[in-house]
Amino acid sequence: MRILFLGDIVGEPGRKAVIKYLPAIQSDHDIDFTILNGENSAGGRGITPVIANDLFRAGADVITTGDHVWDQREVADHLEKEPRILRPINYPSGVPGAGLFITDTPKGKIAVFNAQGRTFMGQALENPFLIMEEQVSLIHDQGIKMVFLDFHAETTSEKIAMGYHLDGKVSAVVGTHTHVQTADERILPNGTAHLTDAGMCGPETSILGRNVESIVYRFKSSLPTRFPVAKGPVRLCGAIIDVDPESGKARTITRYNRLLEPSEM
Amino acid sequence: MRILFLGDIVGEPGRKAVIKYLPAIQSDHDIDFTILNGENSAGGRGITPVIANDLFRAGADVITTGDHVWDQREVADHLEKEPRILRPINYPSGVPGAGLFITDTPKGKIAVFNAQGRTFMGQALENPFLIMEEQVSLIHDQGIKMVFLDFHAETTSEKIAMGYHLDGKVSAVVGTHTHVQTADERILPNGTAHLTDAGMCGPETSILGRNVESIVYRFKSSLPTRFPVAKGPVRLCGAIIDVDPESGKARTITRYNRLLEPSEM
Amino acid sequence: MRILFLGDIVGEPGRKAVIKYLPAIQSDHDIDFTILNGENSAGGRGITPVIANDLFRAGADVITTGDHVWDQREVADHLEKEPRILRPINYPSGVPGAGLFITDTPKGKIAVFNAQGRTFMGQALENPFLIMEEQVSLIHDQGIKMVFLDFHAETTSEKIAMGYHLDGKVSAVVGTHTHVQTADERILPNGTAHLTDAGMCGPETSILGRNVESIVYRFKSSLPTRFPVAKGPVRLCGAIIDVDPESGKARTITRYNRLLEPSEM
Amino acid sequence: MRILFLGDIVGEPGRKAVIKYLPAIQSDHDIDFTILNGENSAGGRGITPVIANDLFRAGADVITTGDHVWDQREVADHLEKEPRILRPINYPSGVPGAGLFITDTPKGKIAVFNAQGRTFMGQALENPFLIMEEQVSLIHDQGIKMVFLDFHAETTSEKIAMGYHLDGKVSAVVGTHTHVQTADERILPNGTAHLTDAGMCGPETSILGRNVESIVYRFKSSLPTRFPVAKGPVRLCGAIIDVDPESGKARTITRYNRLLEPSEM
Ligand SMILES: [Fe+2]
Ligand SMILES: [Fe+2]
Ligand SMILES: [Fe+2]
Ligand SMILES: [Fe+2]
Ligand SMILES: [Fe+2]
Ligand SMILES: [Fe+2]
Ligand SMILES: [Fe+2]
Ligand SMILES: [Fe+2]
Repeated sequence: MRILFLGDIVGEPGRKAVIKYLPAIQSDHDIDFTILNGENSAGGRGITPVIANDLFRAGADVITTGDHVWDQREVADHLEKEPRILRPINYPSGVPGAGLFITDTPKGKIAVFNAQGRTFMGQALENPFLIMEEQVSLIHDQGIKMVFLDFHAETTSEKIAMGYHLDGKVSAVVGTHTHVQTADERILPNGTAHLTDAGMCGPETSILGRNVESIVYRFKSSLPTRFPVAKGPVRLCGAIIDVDPESGKARTITRYNRLLEPSEM
Repeated sequence: MRILFLGDIVGEPGRKAVIKYLPAIQSDHDIDFTILNGENSAGGRGITPVIANDLFRAGADVITTGDHVWDQREVADHLEKEPRILRPINYPSGVPGAGLFITDTPKGKIAVFNAQGRTFMGQALENPFLIMEEQVSLIHDQGIKMVFLDFHAETTSEKIAMGYHLDGKVSAVVGTHTHVQTADERILPNGTAHLTDAGMCGPETSILGRNVESIVYRFKSSLPTRFPVAKGPVRLCGAIIDVDPESGKARTITRYNRLLEPSEM
Repeated sequence: MRILFLGDIVGEPGRKAVIKYLPAIQSDHDIDFTILNGENSAGGRGITPVIANDLFRAGADVITTGDHVWDQREVADHLEKEPRILRPINYPSGVPGAGLFITDTPKGKIAVFNAQGRTFMGQALENPFLIMEEQVSLIHDQGIKMVFLDFHAETTSEKIAMGYHLDGKVSAVVGTHTHVQTADERILPNGTAHLTDAGMCGPETSILGRNVESIVYRFKSSLPTRFPVAKGPVRLCGAIIDVDPESGKARTITRYNRLLEPSEM
Repeated sequence: MRILFLGDIVGEPGRKAVIKYLPAIQSDHDIDFTILNGENSAGGRGITPVIANDLFRAGADVITTGDHVWDQREVADHLEKEPRILRPINYPSGVPGAGLFITDTPKGKIAVFNAQGRTFMGQALENPFLIMEEQVSLIHDQGIKMVFLDFHAETTSEKIAMGYHLDGKVSAVVGTHTHVQTADERILPNGTAHLTDAGMCGPETSILGRNVESIVYRFKSSLPTRFPVAKGPVRLCGAIIDVDPESGKARTITRYNRLLEPSEM
């Protein structure tokens, strides 16, 4: 079972590139299941139902999000109708949407989770370590072996700690939120694939997908500024994880990292 | 001019590995100048004069630090005597030590800076963007072309913004502090080499060099815990930058990332 | 039923003053029940079993704490044996100690809670709003009317929000942690007494009980410094709440704020 | 010389009450000079030129602000034209506006400063302790004795530290930003009047001037919410400082704290 995960899709450049290239990536890499993080796909802030549908039509099986999930007003209602879009699971009960999606694939059932870290994140959420432990145990009770977690968090320590915490219990823990891919992909001692951050799908000449000058100006002046999405060639970042459907353990994890040439855009 | 930079050296495992392998790395890669980040070299917290001397003897030309610079009491006095150990430059004037070291090399003069970010960092320091702009201008006035900055910061946005801010004005901006190497090495449009984070030199099976169980326990319980330095095989992380001594521009930047086998330790 | 609450007792000056003056305060004000916040009573950091016993002997019925609860090593074990010392209730289950103490008084049963805010606090804890709502409901099921909460939190917004959240359900919500008494004591619309912060019991010429020069130096230099407890005359701060035992509603809340003259120390 | 300072004016309820009652307060208390914090006067977010002019017409001599200063777009230009509206002084040079206003009064010259703290504040600004020390020294060089600082900061420690830092060098340091008045007004040992927070001018039944239900909902759900300005009776909070014009030292500081009855609105 080969899972493709692509990190935070940023704005129109990011989502156009993903929509255009996803089918080829899937066939080139024999992908069985595709998960995209769409928290920045609507102008850099959140996701809309229309954009989500475009991504599903292009080949996504599940869309994860993060701290930007609520940026677009319509999303709260849409999450109730569309179980394939996840918000972090560690919100209090009563909040719209869900942080877990279970589905059948030709190679067996898979459970996809989205959770959010608590260090240096905007929202104060419940303990993702305790919630994931409990939830994964419930998943195992259902006989589901293949489990993927997009852990949306700022610090490397929290993201690596989650990997070890779930090591041997899930197939993969891949981090998102920093928009920069880390170079530490590995199979942890008990069989869980880990990558601290998948990186983003967004403009190469940018700061996290945003216009360079705006962000530099903010750091220089301490003044609030608008951060338009940048233009130009897009880099697609993520990971491909090969999972043994029998055991749910990861066999390999490979970073996906491809700069599209201007001619490819 | 080939510069080797190695990221945060963590505790005894990290510094033993660096001391043992640095000479070979230097000769294998034709290194002309070596910069090490030593902020965690003393038991994970700060650096001592003895450890610094061991690192210089092993081949370091300059040692940079970061938010942990003051962790060992003796360091404040030692910084006054040893100009080759830097603390972040953006402290108020009057603070011991310096954030800039200039030296001659067979290939010309080089200026090495250490600065600290302000987002999610423990100390409230002065604006590193304004200080670096001013300082780099002074360096240029002295006719110095080769300039290296270790920018010790938490967020990817601040570290990438600094790269673009100094693009074309310095040879390289390499980030530290997160202890995880990023996979985004590149030459920015105007010739500055950039890597968001160099990663650490420390135990592979660890969370930022610390014992896995301790850190996971903290995230689960929210209780304070001791974080001993982990044991086991060490990974060395950093970057090699090839700089044109005439222009000061970077020709190439390559990530350095090597897991030492147990037999090599 | 008249409840006396005194805010964060800081170091030896604070606890000596509280121990010396508590009996007189209790008799002068016809106090039926006394709650002290002891999180800084041991040299400014945490509380020890010996200090706690001294405070109980002086007349405390319950001791609350906050983010400093774990500062002294012995406390974790002691919390298990001494139910009258509370730690914030919103830790995950499994953590030593409790955040609720119920006891009989001549005027009826009282439940005392300690909870911790989440905005700008060191530890990431669980949602105190949800936990308090649930816990207060359980207390009501037991027929207990008189309920006091020491809500240890940084921001005024979180502390006032908790007051309104529990308004009509508890007798009083009094804040601690900032060490400065606020001037906003009032009975909220549905009968809960509220004071955003009780203030501390500690040296008057100080910054939160600590030596002035040390703290000012830190803000000027951004360097780490030791913060010894200050010396000199002590100010005792807190609140007296008069509760109707039948309904559990507050009748009055008065700030307690008394600067001891040097001759009184 | 009697100075009236009123804390953060929140929205229409706050500014209507200030405009209506300011003349009477000034005459009742023999006020010579009036300073208002207007950072929340425009719907809770920032200030507009029109609102500022209304406040000046009602009797303000100077308007201070804080972290919300830039919330209304037009303000950046207006600050350049209207020196009586201050923004925090510790922005980098080049930023619109100023943090100091000097003016003549019948009782002598007065310098009014506005500065912003760095702990838990949205923007990363320059060191207010160093800047204030330098600026106050320049003010003294001009022979100006009467100096007022509105120090806009979150934590009690930073606000009290600033008081001691400038003690004997300025007439008064009054804090703002938390919207809750503290009960610790005093003359520091060397003659500077200090109040940790002046409190706000805004609706009594509110959380920092905002609608109660909205804020409580946010703390319960961790979801983003709109925070409309609350309605109902307004409380006016601030301080009156009596300054000796010869020495610039404070003679007295009194908290101003008045709840307007519904009939007074
Ligand atoms: Fe995010
Ligand atoms: Fe994102
Ligand atoms: Fe660091
Ligand atoms: Fe480090
Ligand atoms: Fe505290
Ligand atoms: Fe405290
Ligand atoms: Fe503010
Ligand atoms: Fe405000």
